[in-house]
Amino acid sequence: MLPVPKKYFVTAAEAEGKSKLTAFDNALLKAGIGNVNLLRVSSILPPEAEFTPGMQIPPGSLVPTAYGSIVSEIPGERIAAAIAVGIGVDADSFGVIMEYTGKCTKEEAEATITRMVEEAFEVRGKALKEVKVNAVDHVVEKIGCAFAAAPLWY
Amino acid sequence: MLPVPKKYFVTAAEAEGKSKLTAFDNALLKAGIGNVNLLRVSSILPPEAEFTPGMQIPPGSLVPTAYGSIVSEIPGERIAAAIAVGIGVDADSFGVIMEYTGKCTKEEAEATITRMVEEAFEVRGKALKEVKVNAVDHVVEKIGCAFAAAPLWY
Amino acid sequence: MLPVPKKYFVTAAEAEGKSKLTAFDNALLKAGIGNVNLLRVSSILPPEAEFTPGMQIPPGSLVPTAYGSIVSEIPGERIAAAIAVGIGVDADSFGVIMEYTGKCTKEEAEATITRMVEEAFEVRGKALKEVKVNAVDHVVEKIGCAFAAAPLWY
Repeated sequence: MLPVPKKYFVTAAEAEGKSKLTAFDNALLKAGIGNVNLLRVSSILPPEAEFTPGMQIPPGSLVPTAYGSIVSEIPGERIAAAIAVGIGVDADSFGVIMEYTGKCTKEEAEATITRMVEEAFEVRGKALKEVKVNAVDHVVEKIGCAFAAAPLWY
Repeated sequence: MLPVPKKYFVTAAEAEGKSKLTAFDNALLKAGIGNVNLLRVSSILPPEAEFTPGMQIPPGSLVPTAYGSIVSEIPGERIAAAIAVGIGVDADSFGVIMEYTGKCTKEEAEATITRMVEEAFEVRGKALKEVKVNAVDHVVEKIGCAFAAAPLWY
Repeated sequence: MLPVPKKYFVTAAEAEGKSKLTAFDNALLKAGIGNVNLLRVSSILPPEAEFTPGMQIPPGSLVPTAYGSIVSEIPGERIAAAIAVGIGVDADSFGVIMEYTGKCTKEEAEATITRMVEEAFEVRGKALKEVKVNAVDHVVEKIGCAFAAAPLWY
């Protein structure tokens, strides 16, 4: 089987670019994960994974990551991305990661994603201890991206 | 290299949620794979992979999965998702996995995906022995998701 | 951690199919990677990865791949896909992979993606030595796909 991640952090950033993909690339760089290979996952925090902010991951690594990304080419439009990791009372159990993107403020994205994590715990019948949230918004100049992620690592 | 999966099953489910992502999350839970990390793949059944329904996968695992998902916020709309695994006459060879989503009935989705698997075998010049299909449809109440998947495992 | 890829190549192809997904599947077959499982990544060439065109990858393998794909059902419409790998002057450092798809010619896609790689190197403050580009365009008959990829392998 594929090795199960043991660490994680949350990050969010916004950027402009000359194209949609380079706006995304620039947001990844500002989020601190622009030089690795994101492998998108949906979206469970493995049991006993440790919160490790500031972690350095070698360039080119394959990094399982739950993320949300929104790109807009409409000048003046506000876009937002949020990531949230819900951690249960039951310390050795898994957590749930949610991502959200929309045309709204950072605060609205944070409120929305917190409700999403609460719903995810409720349907699983798990008690929620803590939600780690990271969100960002961006007012588009030419081509803008808002990005939020929970990279999982070893 | 990444380890090649040795087992698989097929699953499908539908659900409502309070948001698009939690509708998807709820469908995954009903499909029996809501507590793992889906790594989306396109879409080959490895040679000699064994059909293993009812398999339990540890929470948080990285699970290579071919899947299709459709979410709708239009009350009354019917949505469907189907997964099909085509297995060849040549027992030690690989199979082909197809996913389909649309605004149709479960039966229409099943017919469509079966034709897709037949086309995939035809272009490869392979003889088809069996198609394992799983499909579901859902009439949206507020925010609904139809989901179908072939998880690959070890 | 997941093993870091050591080899790569670039490929592009176009095809028709009876459905969107089989058009995609047919393009993958023509690109030489139709019988493996693509794991989509974004989009860094690992340090010291070796350019290895013509590589054979066993069927069913999980292959980390940066790719772009566009499907159209509008007869007569021209679609294009391009992939580019930028390699730096600094030989032991990582490279950057960009993908692009659009409704344009192959030549326009090549020009666009080359600018994208240049931007990606510029924002990283890295000097660009070489860009490997592969692009394709396709005029849709019924349901067509243009696809370009940089598979990473071991």
